[in-house]
Amino acid sequence: MDKYDKVIDLCKRRGFFWPASEIYGGVAGFLDFGPLGTMLKRNVERRWRETFIHKNHGIVYEIETPMITPSKVFEASGHVENFTDVIVECTSCHKKFRADHIIIEQAGDIQGIEGKTVAQLDDIISAKNVICTECGGKLGKVSNFNLLFRTNIGPYSENIAYIRPEAAQGMFTNFKSIYTAMRERLPIGLAQIGKVARNEISPRQGPLRLREFTIMEVEFFFDPKSPGCSLLEQVHDKKLRLLTEDLVAAEKTDPVEVTVREALSEKLIKSDWLAYFMALSTDFISELGAPHNSQMFVGKLAKERAHYSAQTFDQLVKLDRWGWVEVSGHAYRTDYDLSRHQQYSGQDLGVFRKYGVPKKTRVLVAKPRVDLISREYKSETGKVLAALKGLDAASLRSMLAAGSAVVGGHAIRPEFVEFVEKEESITGERFIPHVAEPSFGADRLTYLTLECAYKEKDDRTVLSLPRSIAPVKICVFPLVNKDGINEKAQAIFDAIRADGYIADFDDGGSIGRRYARSDEIGAPIAVTVDYQTMQDETVTIRDRDTWEQSRIQISALQSYLNGYFSIR
Amino acid sequence: MDKYDKVIDLCKRRGFFWPASEIYGGVAGFLDFGPLGTMLKRNVERRWRETFIHKNHGIVYEIETPMITPSKVFEASGHVENFTDVIVECTSCHKKFRADHIIIEQAGDIQGIEGKTVAQLDDIISAKNVICTECGGKLGKVSNFNLLFRTNIGPYSENIAYIRPEAAQGMFTNFKSIYTAMRERLPIGLAQIGKVARNEISPRQGPLRLREFTIMEVEFFFDPKSPGCSLLEQVHDKKLRLLTEDLVAAEKTDPVEVTVREALSEKLIKSDWLAYFMALSTDFISELGAPHNSQMFVGKLAKERAHYSAQTFDQLVKLDRWGWVEVSGHAYRTDYDLSRHQQYSGQDLGVFRKYGVPKKTRVLVAKPRVDLISREYKSETGKVLAALKGLDAASLRSMLAAGSAVVGGHAIRPEFVEFVEKEESITGERFIPHVAEPSFGADRLTYLTLECAYKEKDDRTVLSLPRSIAPVKICVFPLVNKDGINEKAQAIFDAIRADGYIADFDDGGSIGRRYARSDEIGAPIAVTVDYQTMQDETVTIRDRDTWEQSRIQISALQSYLNGYFSIR
Repeated sequence: MDKYDKVIDLCKRRGFFWPASEIYGGVAGFLDFGPLGTMLKRNVERRWRETFIHKNHGIVYEIETPMITPSKVFEASGHVENFTDVIVECTSCHKKFRADHIIIEQAGDIQGIEGKTVAQLDDIISAKNVICTECGGKLGKVSNFNLLFRTNIGPYSENIAYIRPEAAQGMFTNFKSIYTAMRERLPIGLAQIGKVARNEISPRQGPLRLREFTIMEVEFFFDPKSPGCSLLEQVHDKKLRLLTEDLVAAEKTDPVEVTVREALSEKLIKSDWLAYFMALSTDFISELGAPHNSQMFVGKLAKERAHYSAQTFDQLVKLDRWGWVEVSGHAYRTDYDLSRHQQYSGQDLGVFRKYGVPKKTRVLVAKPRVDLISREYKSETGKVLAALKGLDAASLRSMLAAGSAVVGGHAIRPEFVEFVEKEESITGERFIPHVAEPSFGADRLTYLTLECAYKEKDDRTVLSLPRSIAPVKICVFPLVNKDGINEKAQAIFDAIRADGYIADFDDGGSIGRRYARSDEIGAPIAVTVDYQTMQDETVTIRDRDTWEQSRIQISALQSYLNGYFSIR
Repeated sequence: MDKYDKVIDLCKRRGFFWPASEIYGGVAGFLDFGPLGTMLKRNVERRWRETFIHKNHGIVYEIETPMITPSKVFEASGHVENFTDVIVECTSCHKKFRADHIIIEQAGDIQGIEGKTVAQLDDIISAKNVICTECGGKLGKVSNFNLLFRTNIGPYSENIAYIRPEAAQGMFTNFKSIYTAMRERLPIGLAQIGKVARNEISPRQGPLRLREFTIMEVEFFFDPKSPGCSLLEQVHDKKLRLLTEDLVAAEKTDPVEVTVREALSEKLIKSDWLAYFMALSTDFISELGAPHNSQMFVGKLAKERAHYSAQTFDQLVKLDRWGWVEVSGHAYRTDYDLSRHQQYSGQDLGVFRKYGVPKKTRVLVAKPRVDLISREYKSETGKVLAALKGLDAASLRSMLAAGSAVVGGHAIRPEFVEFVEKEESITGERFIPHVAEPSFGADRLTYLTLECAYKEKDDRTVLSLPRSIAPVKICVFPLVNKDGINEKAQAIFDAIRADGYIADFDDGGSIGRRYARSDEIGAPIAVTVDYQTMQDETVTIRDRDTWEQSRIQISALQSYLNGYFSIR
């Protein structure tokens, strides 16, 4: 068994997670989380919320939008057209495959396969003689398969909806309302932690490739003419490991290590806010247990980037079986999404940029000579004036430059209109904000924390989960179940619970077995009550990672634990 | 404007929530939550998690299962067959209506309309001359409309899936795995807080009737032969307001008020655990701001209960516009769901009940006389013995009571078999656990907290949100933006933030306007820094509800706030 298999085995045995609907044979791409797995995932989400949202409260806000979304939103976003994978079906047994995957399986790695057209893939399949892995049959034509889960809202079949494949669109469609409610301040970040679904053709890799998962993402809106990050000084000296687009293009695989300051001054990262979130992400992934030198950000080449992105970094972590795996994406989405929604909705999604000093500008104004027009047109004068008003001054002047012109069915002679230039003061201009987006998958990160924490020691499994993430913080054990020891342990347990800790009480089996179990579920601290406790009011504290034991007064326990778990 | 309209107006203005996808005209039955609404909803969810799960850690555990669920699960649960509303279409304009609603709208309340068949509804429509409200056209035949959102998993159209309409089924399908992982202990409760979807025909009532919403529910599994609740003493004397089934049947509308102890001893509630959760629910709904005498539990009559329920109480709260509205459901689901999943999956979902003392039982055993049989049948003896083994002893004895019988083609004489009675020891038996279920909708409760908190005072809006639920706990204001006052306020603000509070800093506009805004978003405390602060290190503390102000030393602020917000 490799590490992945061992972790998956532990997950099933201890109730972290397993394939969904297992009693019905399971469904690929869906997980059920048991008690420990759910607590762990909630802690990952909570720490993400604290790091990306609460720490930045006043600038970044959490919102919540539905999963089921009317089709119009994904027409605007481009997903209905572009969110596809290539699929191919066996002409004999009718099994369906992801076309690029089956090619790579049988013909080996092919440079740039992600960018190939359907026709090019057909050519490769016939050139390399790629066949059905199931029955050896001939494969049909490659086509595009849309990864949106489709459904209907209400009883009308024309009300098509999709389950969102990302939370981002909810931030874009709500940007303007929230910008207004939050007193029209930029920059502003909108974040979501919520479920999304992508109808993968044939997902494998267990928890790493899911059809339904929890996304955690921020859409950070800023003025491209004031792109500076006010919080940058907090992260200036943080180190980022970057495999830049240039390095990728040169087929290098070793990243450079630079500070945030250097990455920006050397223009390796195009947006201050993108860099700020990349620094937070590095800290966050480190907190989950991934060593700094097992992390890097890889720049995506222009042809591999999503259609909306001016720059994208994938944050990768090296895993035991799967190699470098993406744990977050950092995209500079520019004004693409808001512009598209403005276009598709017909709503003004722009905001107003006030000039420091109003700009003076000369404006051409058309002044109809009402006296001359009314003499000619009498009761029709109103209509003529309205028709003239419908044209802008410059167009009207060029029309009349050559002589009389017809406007709204009325002949207008040049002398009917005078043109004057006026000076106007303009206080600002409208623009569409730009967007920087960090995006994470909570389920994959939950697996990551488990793999990083998985250790073996003297033939026993120890889950060295970070203190801030471990689901059960403390286990309380009465050494024996008599002489008042159980009651004493229970009282200590109740006090720990009342202080807000998730703690387990275990009075079954040998103390060694109980320690082994608490190590296996990753509880950082075990507290044991024994005969000495009854005499001197001390308990044994055992550390999960060092297995060291020390005695401490019960009265000092609360402050000891509060210090130990500075982040709960 | 009534209270509902005022709350909805405030929600839009201050960024709590509004119809989803508003820039595309909105979609009935879906909400987008803005910054304040999301914080409020998260707090409602967090307090529910603390009350129903964390408080009961060791017995109740949170789990997480997907929304997209293979059809088999809902075939077993009965939803594919039974989860329907009645629908009727106009034969002229083809608009579709919920049949029972359009009847009530035009013909007034009809006793027991919920239980009517499709044919009975057709009769009512023609008898009462119910017509299309849109065009006055003739209505077609009533039919059943399934409320499950339907989709497909993967590229095969036969892989039908539904978006779950309740989280409960995920608890049932995982019960056995988790029971095993958690060391086979009963009782055990599995809880979820997650999204569900119900494809309502034409939802109205804004946040009260949603097509997608967050459910919070516990499926509590217990042995029906040990139905006692170990935590009951914590709630024994809590008061419940019950409109029992008997009162409902007698068309009474005033509930009786009884203690939990009385409700159980008088058998008004059939399960201890159901009563325990009803007591927690009363406290929880009170914490959200609903007065005790605006709450009651209404027993559902047998014909109105879901097919799986032996007893159901709806918890209702009285709202301003909508009257008595359901805020939670409490169902005794018996062993219905696990039995169905056992039947549909072919998996053993039962658990083992060990007897206190093994039971002795007398068993009849058939002993073939091999000596006599082999004398008669020679080399066929093996076959004869195998055939005899295939029959149970009692059947065999009754066959032979009348003389020789043919077994597996062989004539068997009575003397070929001896019958003896043996005593056996049985250590236990298998059974399917019973289930008590409390179930809440987080979105509706979020609206409830807002309506309960909504006050008007001197023409201003005050949201008197409970301290434990309020999204922003503290607002910090510098009186003026000079003489170091802003910096001082900023330092106090930073310290409050570092202590884990969500707080707002506001230095714009008059202090009166800032107080008004903090009242309107429901921040319980405002801290103002002024000139006196610079001299004596005190700040003003202002209470949202009393508008009283008092001065306090900055050094005492942290402990003051920690006392004030004992539950954050």
